[in-house]
Amino acid sequence: MANINGNAVIGQSGGPTCVINESLVGAILESAKHEAIGHMYGARHGLEGLLTNDLIDLTQETPETLERVARTPSAALGSVRKKASEEDCKKLINVFKENDIRYFFYIGGNDTAETANIVDELARGEDYEFRVCHIPKTIDNDLRETDHCPGYGSAARFVALALMGDNLDNTALKGVKIDVIMGRHAGFLTGAAALARQNETDGPHLIYLPEVAFDENRFADDVAGCLDRLGRCVIAVSEGITREDGSPVYTSGEKDSHGNVQLSGTGALGDYLSGIVKEKVPAASRVRADTLGYMQRCFPSIRSEVDASEARAAGAFAVRSMVEGELSSGTVCIRRTETDGHYDSEMFITELNKVAKHTKEMPAEFISESGNDVTQAFLDYARPLADDLPVIGRLGTGS
Amino acid sequence: MANINGNAVIGQSGGPTCVINESLVGAILESAKHEAIGHMYGARHGLEGLLTNDLIDLTQETPETLERVARTPSAALGSVRKKASEEDCKKLINVFKENDIRYFFYIGGNDTAETANIVDELARGEDYEFRVCHIPKTIDNDLRETDHCPGYGSAARFVALALMGDNLDNTALKGVKIDVIMGRHAGFLTGAAALARQNETDGPHLIYLPEVAFDENRFADDVAGCLDRLGRCVIAVSEGITREDGSPVYTSGEKDSHGNVQLSGTGALGDYLSGIVKEKVPAASRVRADTLGYMQRCFPSIRSEVDASEARAAGAFAVRSMVEGELSSGTVCIRRTETDGHYDSEMFITELNKVAKHTKEMPAEFISESGNDVTQAFLDYARPLADDLPVIGRLGTGS
Repeated sequence: MANINGNAVIGQSGGPTCVINESLVGAILESAKHEAIGHMYGARHGLEGLLTNDLIDLTQETPETLERVARTPSAALGSVRKKASEEDCKKLINVFKENDIRYFFYIGGNDTAETANIVDELARGEDYEFRVCHIPKTIDNDLRETDHCPGYGSAARFVALALMGDNLDNTALKGVKIDVIMGRHAGFLTGAAALARQNETDGPHLIYLPEVAFDENRFADDVAGCLDRLGRCVIAVSEGITREDGSPVYTSGEKDSHGNVQLSGTGALGDYLSGIVKEKVPAASRVRADTLGYMQRCFPSIRSEVDASEARAAGAFAVRSMVEGELSSGTVCIRRTETDGHYDSEMFITELNKVAKHTKEMPAEFISESGNDVTQAFLDYARPLADDLPVIGRLGTGS
Repeated sequence: MANINGNAVIGQSGGPTCVINESLVGAILESAKHEAIGHMYGARHGLEGLLTNDLIDLTQETPETLERVARTPSAALGSVRKKASEEDCKKLINVFKENDIRYFFYIGGNDTAETANIVDELARGEDYEFRVCHIPKTIDNDLRETDHCPGYGSAARFVALALMGDNLDNTALKGVKIDVIMGRHAGFLTGAAALARQNETDGPHLIYLPEVAFDENRFADDVAGCLDRLGRCVIAVSEGITREDGSPVYTSGEKDSHGNVQLSGTGALGDYLSGIVKEKVPAASRVRADTLGYMQRCFPSIRSEVDASEARAAGAFAVRSMVEGELSSGTVCIRRTETDGHYDSEMFITELNKVAKHTKEMPAEFISESGNDVTQAFLDYARPLADDLPVIGRLGTGS
């Protein structure tokens, strides 16, 4: 396929992550290596900036600034939760034509891939020579085709550390502790809580995933059993848990522009679950709930270096593939490989419509038969992504 | 004062911190240097272990284990919230006599200092030659006499990083974000949120402290004003905020054995404040609240190295002072000094009854006249304790 010469634009969309700026910087630095790309523009707040021509020239940024931005969480260009209409996408094509933009890179989740897909189809229809690539990011890890998503490993690391600390806290002062973790439909992030365990009696002792129907009585029985065994109980719960009939256990009723119900940014689910334990588990004392909240996706200085380097590589791979590759559009995916018996990975490109709109849930082999834990297969999957965790020191163990 | 020869015991009490084990390890390592001290025992769960003779011999621990324990958050010996009765303290003296314990070190807050004080008075009454030293720890920073408490700097660092991340998140996706921070009577930890600011428009934009009476209408006006100015608003609120009449803005009604009302471990205050904003601020959208929760005091790998080294030094200083010093009982305090124009500190011992029971609040010069922020004097006070924070990278600023 012949090179197209022109400018490029990049945007960020959806909930930010700790490494989404690594992908941005990876793409900016890679674009400078290719003569086919003139200017690399950044769209402020994704689609919003594209529609209002609110672009900045990223070619001007110094390497020092870019490296600092890469290590900074959240979306440095600003983000957006706007879903693109057909009308928006038509307008976009005009903005691209006006600015001689021939390359469009859009970092985000499956809704972002969908926008990229619509724009791609419209451009083909108008016979405008153009390449568009979706660069994946999500802490939920719910994109199809890819082994895992940039952003997940760092959020998984945060969750694992939070639960490690909470388990130590709960060991020092016994009680029932509930931690509510992000994840609308997929339990990958909640499951990462299990990475906190280093000793047999370590929590989280119970894990509730969106993939398993939640039953209040079984939950109360689980907690009572754990208290009986250990005198304490640390519980990781996904914000997205639903009842047998598919309705969320808790929802404020508020919806975003993608039609998604608001789950985060409230402590109500945790407080509700605390109430169940207080009411139904007589042996329970010191029942507390924390909602890990937005910290999971944007905490400075907590990130998986494996995740960070893959996020950077995904940005660079998107640019290289669109300039030099066989496809005129696509999304970057990660394939897990092994080097000298250790975790490794490589990138590949697949079609946008394989990722757009859809989400992926935890496969059955990652969920324990009891329905309240993850399996060893999941731990093997998630551990290298979250990177090495600190080793807990313990007294009186002779170790 | 003549040396007393005998064994020593150490315990940990109250809410854990990220560096309370540094004080423990500091005391253990120091005790090995003094012939006056035979065995150094550790009491499991503080007072509880002392009363049931649940002691472990810490002299057996390897240096590797101790260093690993020192870097591990929470209380490695276990903690307790039990308040000592006179009866308990009498029983304690008997346990001490049985085990030839002549040194008692107790790491904790003001309630812990009170227990140490009662034990000290009883031992004097019984003419049992004995030394007792309180080693301060609290994330609230609410102890008197000392410039600051070990444990505060690391928690302040966590809060500053959390708000830094949340401000970046809120910049990318605009809205109103409320973060509820620990601190029953003292606003030091909530104030540390202000350390997150690096640019003029950075949040937190509003800070509500327990020292300033909270008024819902003024709060709504503050938020509306901030939205008008910036189109977004990040708010740091202490869990301990009270109304004009002194009643807590939110309480679950539950109390611990010290008679303290439960404030942490629930998202109710944040959700309540979200409700006020949704109801009274028409311009507000995307109103979210997170409660930072137990993570503030026990998050592995987030700690201030300044705080960690002072915590270690406080443990060692307690042992040295009781073996070699002029006082037979006391509490360790920190005095702020300067070396080559940089922050430095030194330790001293003061009487237990100056710290026992009482708490300290933020001095007036740390609170802005508006009542919804901290002052430069506070920032100068807190910044060195939280240690250097990461520098935020920004695009399009020419820097």
